[in-house]
Amino acid sequence: MADNRDRPLILISNDDGIEAAGILSLAAALDSIGDIVIAAPLQEMSAVGHAITMRDPVRARPWPFRGPSGQLTAYAVSGTPADCVKLALDKLVPRRPDLVVSGINHGPNTAVNVIYSGTVSAATEAAILGIPSIAFSYCKWGSGDFEASGRVARQVVEQVLDNEWPAGILLNVNIPDIPFDQIKGVMITRQAQARWEEQFAERLDPFDRPYYWLSGTFVNLDSGTNTDLWAVDNGWVSVTPVHHDLTAYRAMEALQQWNWNDKA
Amino acid sequence: MADNRDRPLILISNDDGIEAAGILSLAAALDSIGDIVIAAPLQEMSAVGHAITMRDPVRARPWPFRGPSGQLTAYAVSGTPADCVKLALDKLVPRRPDLVVSGINHGPNTAVNVIYSGTVSAATEAAILGIPSIAFSYCKWGSGDFEASGRVARQVVEQVLDNEWPAGILLNVNIPDIPFDQIKGVMITRQAQARWEEQFAERLDPFDRPYYWLSGTFVNLDSGTNTDLWAVDNGWVSVTPVHHDLTAYRAMEALQQWNWNDKA
Repeated sequence: MADNRDRPLILISNDDGIEAAGILSLAAALDSIGDIVIAAPLQEMSAVGHAITMRDPVRARPWPFRGPSGQLTAYAVSGTPADCVKLALDKLVPRRPDLVVSGINHGPNTAVNVIYSGTVSAATEAAILGIPSIAFSYCKWGSGDFEASGRVARQVVEQVLDNEWPAGILLNVNIPDIPFDQIKGVMITRQAQARWEEQFAERLDPFDRPYYWLSGTFVNLDSGTNTDLWAVDNGWVSVTPVHHDLTAYRAMEALQQWNWNDKA
Repeated sequence: MADNRDRPLILISNDDGIEAAGILSLAAALDSIGDIVIAAPLQEMSAVGHAITMRDPVRARPWPFRGPSGQLTAYAVSGTPADCVKLALDKLVPRRPDLVVSGINHGPNTAVNVIYSGTVSAATEAAILGIPSIAFSYCKWGSGDFEASGRVARQVVEQVLDNEWPAGILLNVNIPDIPFDQIKGVMITRQAQARWEEQFAERLDPFDRPYYWLSGTFVNLDSGTNTDLWAVDNGWVSVTPVHHDLTAYRAMEALQQWNWNDKA
């Protein structure tokens, strides 16, 4: 691998697996900006949340991965997106990366889906260590044309490299499913309040034992016009700063009024 | 199952699995407070984060689970903690629970460990749906005596049932590893800033192929005296309000100053 310190080192991961179209588009979009190392799951790992592998060993296998400039340094990892980034930062990169990017995810990671997202979890691992990181998602399920989202990803990365990074965050970027020249621009957003209302489908196996498939309806409870959902629904690229401090600070005062220490 | 509407309905889950000592202690501590339904993973599910099962069906098997009052309504679920709560709320409970509790986890869920925690993810699923929920963790790894933590859990639940619940949160409760009568009381805390510094152990398999075990050092970067880590280290029960809005609001303004829309 070229180790040219004038160029930023960019570590790329995802949750759809190393063979997904989205990670190929992301690597192609960033290949001329920096030196690339790819560490992505061998298998598709959607909706794994922030899982890490503690009970089994993890392997990293060099992987043939071609970018526009030729063969890129790439590893297929037998683990989750968080495992990929943890292992890469400790064992697979030649120096501390300037940037960690994850995606391009096949499908949106807006609203509460952020907490289920393997794509976001890879970026979170970098953010915890103070490395700028970005999760990219293209708001179309399945395969799809990543041309526009690749161009957006490149522009977002250029912005990040040009500006001072706010400490302790990652950027969660959702790209609408419209042609590049119809995108209105970038909107800085907050995570929309929304939820899944589950209705498991119940079936019977050939032995008459029940089993359940997760399904449900996504319900947007948020009428704000500065949310991630609103932005992508209205033709904007949504950029949400995300952190890993889950404290609900606004609730601390109310809880302090409770009569805790008479009882516990 | 008794369906006495004068008594609260309490759904119990965990991530250590339905046979863990911690969930038995939690059920025993709460059995006389309310009607209990247990839905917990068939297998141990630590560090699964907020994973959900989308590619496979989920099963729920009635499980013999004895509490102080006799046989409790219990199901072993072939999935993650989040799956357990989603499935239970849709298919296994006789009415909407008044409270969802998760644990008692074998080991702490303080600081950044919250994002890896299956115990917390079960409580988060309830919080998203607006149901009061509590994640309990006993700050001792492995087996251990859950007598003190069971008593604390009961007192915390009594407080929750006596007070008005702040919307949109869960309580992440960490109980120090000291005898009950040495616990100083309850402290309302924030999540400490800390991180794991990974050092994967590299080994060779019998075929000389490398594999890696996740290991590392936990580093507390936070000198505050109102954090979850400080509380349990100083003999207090730590109660942190946790939410699922991951927006880093303080970073939004800085990002809005960037020159986004000249480029994207």
